[in-house]
Amino acid sequence: MSTSTAQQSSAAASFSVRDLDLKLKQVRLAHPEQSLPSPPSSNGASSPVDRDYFHLRSLKECIEIYEDAKRSKSESLALLSDEEVVLLADNGKVAPHALEKLFGMNELERAVRTRRAIISRSSATKALESSSIPYENYDYSRVIGACCENVVGYIPIPLGVAGPLNVDGTSFPIPMATAEGTLVASTSRGCKALNAGGGVSTVLVGDAMTRGPAIDFPSIKVAAQAKAWVDSAEGYAEMKAAFESTSRFAKLKSLKTAMAGRTMYIRFATTTGDAMGMNMISKGTEKALDAMQARFPSMVVLALSGNYCTDKKPAAINWIEGRGKSVVAEAVIPGHIVKTVLKTTVGGLCNLNVKKNLIGSAMAGSIGGFNAHASNILTAIFLATGQDPAQNVESSMCMTLMEPTNNGEDLLCSVTMPCIEVGTVGGGTVLAAQQGVLEMLGVKGAHPQQPGKNAQTLARVIASAVLAGELSLLSALAAGHLIKAHMAHNRSQVNTPAASVPVTPGPRV
Amino acid sequence: MSTSTAQQSSAAASFSVRDLDLKLKQVRLAHPEQSLPSPPSSNGASSPVDRDYFHLRSLKECIEIYEDAKRSKSESLALLSDEEVVLLADNGKVAPHALEKLFGMNELERAVRTRRAIISRSSATKALESSSIPYENYDYSRVIGACCENVVGYIPIPLGVAGPLNVDGTSFPIPMATAEGTLVASTSRGCKALNAGGGVSTVLVGDAMTRGPAIDFPSIKVAAQAKAWVDSAEGYAEMKAAFESTSRFAKLKSLKTAMAGRTMYIRFATTTGDAMGMNMISKGTEKALDAMQARFPSMVVLALSGNYCTDKKPAAINWIEGRGKSVVAEAVIPGHIVKTVLKTTVGGLCNLNVKKNLIGSAMAGSIGGFNAHASNILTAIFLATGQDPAQNVESSMCMTLMEPTNNGEDLLCSVTMPCIEVGTVGGGTVLAAQQGVLEMLGVKGAHPQQPGKNAQTLARVIASAVLAGELSLLSALAAGHLIKAHMAHNRSQVNTPAASVPVTPGPRV
Amino acid sequence: MSTSTAQQSSAAASFSVRDLDLKLKQVRLAHPEQSLPSPPSSNGASSPVDRDYFHLRSLKECIEIYEDAKRSKSESLALLSDEEVVLLADNGKVAPHALEKLFGMNELERAVRTRRAIISRSSATKALESSSIPYENYDYSRVIGACCENVVGYIPIPLGVAGPLNVDGTSFPIPMATAEGTLVASTSRGCKALNAGGGVSTVLVGDAMTRGPAIDFPSIKVAAQAKAWVDSAEGYAEMKAAFESTSRFAKLKSLKTAMAGRTMYIRFATTTGDAMGMNMISKGTEKALDAMQARFPSMVVLALSGNYCTDKKPAAINWIEGRGKSVVAEAVIPGHIVKTVLKTTVGGLCNLNVKKNLIGSAMAGSIGGFNAHASNILTAIFLATGQDPAQNVESSMCMTLMEPTNNGEDLLCSVTMPCIEVGTVGGGTVLAAQQGVLEMLGVKGAHPQQPGKNAQTLARVIASAVLAGELSLLSALAAGHLIKAHMAHNRSQVNTPAASVPVTPGPRV
Amino acid sequence: MSTSTAQQSSAAASFSVRDLDLKLKQVRLAHPEQSLPSPPSSNGASSPVDRDYFHLRSLKECIEIYEDAKRSKSESLALLSDEEVVLLADNGKVAPHALEKLFGMNELERAVRTRRAIISRSSATKALESSSIPYENYDYSRVIGACCENVVGYIPIPLGVAGPLNVDGTSFPIPMATAEGTLVASTSRGCKALNAGGGVSTVLVGDAMTRGPAIDFPSIKVAAQAKAWVDSAEGYAEMKAAFESTSRFAKLKSLKTAMAGRTMYIRFATTTGDAMGMNMISKGTEKALDAMQARFPSMVVLALSGNYCTDKKPAAINWIEGRGKSVVAEAVIPGHIVKTVLKTTVGGLCNLNVKKNLIGSAMAGSIGGFNAHASNILTAIFLATGQDPAQNVESSMCMTLMEPTNNGEDLLCSVTMPCIEVGTVGGGTVLAAQQGVLEMLGVKGAHPQQPGKNAQTLARVIASAVLAGELSLLSALAAGHLIKAHMAHNRSQVNTPAASVPVTPGPRV
Repeated sequence: MSTSTAQQSSAAASFSVRDLDLKLKQVRLAHPEQSLPSPPSSNGASSPVDRDYFHLRSLKECIEIYEDAKRSKSESLALLSDEEVVLLADNGKVAPHALEKLFGMNELERAVRTRRAIISRSSATKALESSSIPYENYDYSRVIGACCENVVGYIPIPLGVAGPLNVDGTSFPIPMATAEGTLVASTSRGCKALNAGGGVSTVLVGDAMTRGPAIDFPSIKVAAQAKAWVDSAEGYAEMKAAFESTSRFAKLKSLKTAMAGRTMYIRFATTTGDAMGMNMISKGTEKALDAMQARFPSMVVLALSGNYCTDKKPAAINWIEGRGKSVVAEAVIPGHIVKTVLKTTVGGLCNLNVKKNLIGSAMAGSIGGFNAHASNILTAIFLATGQDPAQNVESSMCMTLMEPTNNGEDLLCSVTMPCIEVGTVGGGTVLAAQQGVLEMLGVKGAHPQQPGKNAQTLARVIASAVLAGELSLLSALAAGHLIKAHMAHNRSQVNTPAASVPVTPGPRV
Repeated sequence: MSTSTAQQSSAAASFSVRDLDLKLKQVRLAHPEQSLPSPPSSNGASSPVDRDYFHLRSLKECIEIYEDAKRSKSESLALLSDEEVVLLADNGKVAPHALEKLFGMNELERAVRTRRAIISRSSATKALESSSIPYENYDYSRVIGACCENVVGYIPIPLGVAGPLNVDGTSFPIPMATAEGTLVASTSRGCKALNAGGGVSTVLVGDAMTRGPAIDFPSIKVAAQAKAWVDSAEGYAEMKAAFESTSRFAKLKSLKTAMAGRTMYIRFATTTGDAMGMNMISKGTEKALDAMQARFPSMVVLALSGNYCTDKKPAAINWIEGRGKSVVAEAVIPGHIVKTVLKTTVGGLCNLNVKKNLIGSAMAGSIGGFNAHASNILTAIFLATGQDPAQNVESSMCMTLMEPTNNGEDLLCSVTMPCIEVGTVGGGTVLAAQQGVLEMLGVKGAHPQQPGKNAQTLARVIASAVLAGELSLLSALAAGHLIKAHMAHNRSQVNTPAASVPVTPGPRV
Repeated sequence: MSTSTAQQSSAAASFSVRDLDLKLKQVRLAHPEQSLPSPPSSNGASSPVDRDYFHLRSLKECIEIYEDAKRSKSESLALLSDEEVVLLADNGKVAPHALEKLFGMNELERAVRTRRAIISRSSATKALESSSIPYENYDYSRVIGACCENVVGYIPIPLGVAGPLNVDGTSFPIPMATAEGTLVASTSRGCKALNAGGGVSTVLVGDAMTRGPAIDFPSIKVAAQAKAWVDSAEGYAEMKAAFESTSRFAKLKSLKTAMAGRTMYIRFATTTGDAMGMNMISKGTEKALDAMQARFPSMVVLALSGNYCTDKKPAAINWIEGRGKSVVAEAVIPGHIVKTVLKTTVGGLCNLNVKKNLIGSAMAGSIGGFNAHASNILTAIFLATGQDPAQNVESSMCMTLMEPTNNGEDLLCSVTMPCIEVGTVGGGTVLAAQQGVLEMLGVKGAHPQQPGKNAQTLARVIASAVLAGELSLLSALAAGHLIKAHMAHNRSQVNTPAASVPVTPGPRV
Repeated sequence: MSTSTAQQSSAAASFSVRDLDLKLKQVRLAHPEQSLPSPPSSNGASSPVDRDYFHLRSLKECIEIYEDAKRSKSESLALLSDEEVVLLADNGKVAPHALEKLFGMNELERAVRTRRAIISRSSATKALESSSIPYENYDYSRVIGACCENVVGYIPIPLGVAGPLNVDGTSFPIPMATAEGTLVASTSRGCKALNAGGGVSTVLVGDAMTRGPAIDFPSIKVAAQAKAWVDSAEGYAEMKAAFESTSRFAKLKSLKTAMAGRTMYIRFATTTGDAMGMNMISKGTEKALDAMQARFPSMVVLALSGNYCTDKKPAAINWIEGRGKSVVAEAVIPGHIVKTVLKTTVGGLCNLNVKKNLIGSAMAGSIGGFNAHASNILTAIFLATGQDPAQNVESSMCMTLMEPTNNGEDLLCSVTMPCIEVGTVGGGTVLAAQQGVLEMLGVKGAHPQQPGKNAQTLARVIASAVLAGELSLLSALAAGHLIKAHMAHNRSQVNTPAASVPVTPGPRV
């Protein structure tokens, strides 16, 4: 294994711009027909650079080379060493964010490497350049212009696999990118219990991404007329036609209108094929608003998003109306499995679920947070599959329910998740690793026959995995307690309510 | 072996278990004194393996070798080929999650590689083994037993750098791990505008992680007595002493009690040094509950978390009480900067902020979501710095405010974020890349003199970056509109309210 | 003026059962052909009763008389004195709640009077019988079997009239039943300011009462099928036909479905003519559920109300979807009126409104409470017009908005109230006084030509009055402050934000 | 004159200003030494007035008489007839709201009567004057200057009595002023069931009224300094001293601070003796803010209420922190009573309670509305006892809990009500009838030995009555269903979940 490989992750600190420049120097020495050799950088005492031989060209020279290249339309920085590019940047001649363009698509990594140097040296800590943040051997062509700007490397998130989990009759490995210890193991335990009960059954009861622009009107009368028009069959048809002219996947499902004084909010809800769909819906919304504007020339669109969407913020409207995929997943777990795998009891789990996930969350003033840790599982799968983790705010809204069934013998459990916002095309799903995970799940890209089905399957898998995670954590809480309580009190069933006698009124507290 | 390095990310598909086994074969041929050579795997048509020469040992043989090794306390799988380990796993002799233990700490990558094969072959898609999910050259020693289980590689998230941003007089690069295009660029624009106004000023008005167990009592009378005791100076002192005996960083700040029927919820709030602190507080809470149990023997702790914390779920209690670091960040931006950098006007921004972030969110039934996209910026920094992205549910709660100042000339803007849950030790901050980012920010690890200061600084930087992100997106929305409106209507200021005449009552709508 | 009249309200204490019995005695003495005279009661030292002459018949006698009367189908208690009825009640022979039936419709007041005695004597305080709670001269025939049971009198609520207020071109007196001092006066001031600006303009943007039953299914699969059916055109048509078969006023407007695990909630929304409509909609819902049950025999209706309505409880669903009448009311108030009538400034009001009604309420975790005191005005009008004051929980949800208009000269203000639940028939509107108030407003009973219009007008008047109340209170808060601030600081405009300088980063707080 | 009494309520229509004037005429004819006789009014064909003899004096004459009286400091309208006062009012010489002052305290009813005429004739419907709204024989001296302005009569609300109910060992009649049929009867049934179980046990776990001013600062730095000061022991002590200097009852319990940008909100919480306490706390808050202002001269108090209180608006802060009295009430009801009195089963009730009051309300996005109809019972008692019904918005927040106890035999039920805002002095409790009800309950006025105890007892009674109301309505819903279900399906227990088989994955829905 070569040294460069070995250092990549933690040892990357010793592998900086100057090493590269040294290599470059060697290349240039071997090819004297190329332009003047450029010296390595001289930052740090550990850089014994032969300044006499490999020196930086002057700023003036560098600018000339750079300007010449620009004029001749060639990759304008190709003839300069990294250090010389840094010099140009430091003097404002080159914008760090434009390096990919200037180096060209064949030198994306060099752009990243040079940017690290530029940013590092202007920062207080000077740490980035030689930091342990990896940047080599990454396919930046998928990133540039699509996923990130001013890139300096990448952050690796450990990927574990929980499960497999039987979801609607198919067994899925559950990919989880996370740095939270025990999360994968715990979810796996939940999967085991669920599989033992025959697996998880899911239903998809909604599928619509939303966008909610804000529009001002000169009076509430005009606003109300506009609202009535949008709410009418005629207005809806006109808006829908305009909306759907922008995409073959986006089908308008509903328009929900509301007024706050003279301002109207319209919540566009639409299917978006296998894409999460925010871009798609934004385009359609814009077009539909144009159609509306033609009808109501006095209206003023304040913003394409008036927070009535509601994207990446807690909001009751999402919990109530749904956003993205609305999924309910349920399972029945035999009582003996609850005991052997989950180490607790049906009664203990149900009691805890009511007092923690329903009552506790209600006491805390939660809307949509009636679960133990849905966000953990969902976020890990989001990261693994290239979803937008900023959307877990609403996507992780979840109500976990448990009740005894079959005469109290077995456990009926479910999760209700109205807002799972996922896609299998676009966004972070274009990245290689994320795509690999989607492929592992069999949901990569657009579904060839039934557009949207891949994204829906992913949502079903997520909900089912959340159910596994809920089961396992709640069991741990209940059992952990059980064990402790047993030792302390030698009682057989302590997390169910104590026996009650009729209330004996006494002195007031 | 530099080629293997080059393929790591996207080209990793061609680099599977069989390649490794081939190498192993060569090694063994060269060292016949070692145990019998093991053949490469035979999965897939593309694997032209010489089956005659390099054959798998039988299951029986493999089990014997494995059992022998276990008896001799050596790394029990060292003498088996990857394929033979797969064989053992397929036959239930080896648990995939235990591979690291069985291979030993010197062969962590081999454990991961073999696990990929095991999981892959039992999955429907068979895709994992040869997938584009990278796994090589990663320091698994930091992951095992701490961050993830059943690891099969890692997910790289592109890391961009926005800014720098002047926060309280210091310039910080803003690290953002994200796959959402334009997010870094947009945040950078916000930083530029903020810097032009002198930078961001922040205050930290709260710092306490919380845990909220649920406890049952045999009657409301006893529950009320217990509540009164905890609320009393005496009870508090006793609980505090017990709590703080578990850590030198965790200092109990307050206990908030509530009853729901016979169930009591106690919200422990505590400083946690530079750690995010959930583990620390859980330990302390457990100890304090022991002390309480001694006073109230009839109480039954249902769970250490009764959702009164509230962790990773939307809850008004967090918005109102705060959780983690509570930060307010503000800035004044000169009017001309609003025009030249943000391409909009002070009036336009303020009007939009009220109608989108205050009114729009209020119409949507939001609690704590009075912002445009705080979650985007916060989540990206969370991922870059090793925070728990599942906690962005509450951490991204944010109220963005804008109002004209200096006689309407300039813009006063702020973000109020009561729940930024961050740490610079523990959790994902132990990973090399994430640690590199913290180092770049100058907040790696525990602050040597003032425990907690590094985490607090990180929270201040996050809030400030959120302010930058808010400014930029709101400006884009306002300006995008402005431009369009200009073209359509040739009006000079369209996103401020239209002029009003006294209402002329007419027919009802 | 007779004494009995004079004592009615506060002096009623001296006018108890015994006075009535004394009169009865006199009547009986004058008509010896009637049954034996009955003595007055003997409770209290102030009752110098001649026991020799006017004695109570024995319990046995009383029972006989009572049983005889019952057999002969006559008003069974007519021949007994009040005290004798009390005797029967004390011995369990007569149920206090049945007195109206037993005395007959011609002696309703006597039933009330006797009940007071019965309840009073069995209570600890013995205070009711001779209390200052009025009961005479009230038309109980409208109450019995309709509005109240076990009646012992009535509670008078002072009725003030604010305004008049110009609403959509018509001038309305604003009736307010309240015991909160200054409320009427303050609202009147608001009316004056509004009238000066041309009055209030309103729009009705929704009109539908709702009911939300809870239904269990044997699995989420069946539940989802049922949901899909209800959501389908076919299912909706079938449900609507069944629903509307129960009333000629109730027209089904929409069905909103949601699942929580295996439980489905359906929110029926319907117009209800001029009735508030809860009874009407309950009947229709029951019928529609019967139709649904025929399709889904395995479903179990848990309750006609599953709190998905949501009646008399705070709930985001009401704020977002509306309930009852959804009204927006707005007005423009000239700047000079703001100064002369409201004693404040346009800028001061707008600033306060944002920081109190939007930001303050947001900080408090409010959903739908973005106002100063809408509940005050609405509740007072509800009580005056016979509405259900328990419904003010959702009816008073209101967002008050204020912004400068006409170049900042004038004030644009509005209230948005999505849930005004009112009727002009049924409920408390059957009572004489309440009906008198409705008549004064011109909205008594059902609208002859346009069913529902009277209730809608009432809702418009309420919203407009709320706007008046909001304006006045906010002005008082802003002005009170202004005056005080002037004195203290001699500054000209103190409740607008202080001037800002670019932030000078300093030491952290 | 007993006829006038008889007509008072519904027949009041025939008893208007003109009748009074006729009487006045007779008096004046009999006493010619008094000023010129004044004629009755002439509104309506039914008024056969002898215009020749009893004519109105001219406006000029009337003004002279009025001005003379004013000069001589006598009751300025005494010498004028009602009609003449109307004439003055119509010509802007007399303000209707000032009539009490002008007529003097001995003629309060005449002021009301005349006001009815003035308002009536200027209204569109002309209905008020002769309306069925009662106004006679009411003690206006308690209303004027305290409870209402511009009074035109009163609205009688029927008063029923439910119960009695055993609360903490004492039996209380439950007074309910309501026009909602069956409410009293239903609550009574609940009382019966509760009494059978030994009655209700209550605990008071909080007692503090709150006020939340909004304060602006010139920067977040100064705001944070102020916040830190208020949060410090020193600042708290200083604020407390200032606050408590204003009242001997108001004891400051806590100050809760929050920042939103530069604006600070402080929630003052204080005990208020037996008063509901809003006035008391406002005074104290003002004083405390003065003290704070001395420390922070740059602060600007925007308003004494910044909605952080939160008064009469839904807000999570009330649910979480409590406001007024925080009461929990619980009871155990033997299973046989559930069957015989409530006509349902323990299992049926518990299942319904979870699915309606917990899950249903959660689905509806409720905060604090986890009950069936607490607002009904609370509002009725509020009206009966002179509380502010506009405060039922937060006072009725309630969580109703039910679970099986004693091995599932019996029912454990409770209500948790953190915000019961009541007083037994001040506000509507000064009115005679309302005072009568308080007296009946034994909680009239301030408690002589333990200030606050009367109000606390009232809160306990209210919570207990709410528990009765909840039990009864839930039972009706469960039982109604039970009966219906029995008939339809002949199943013995249909509102518990159906038996479940392990999920059989099938085609997706």
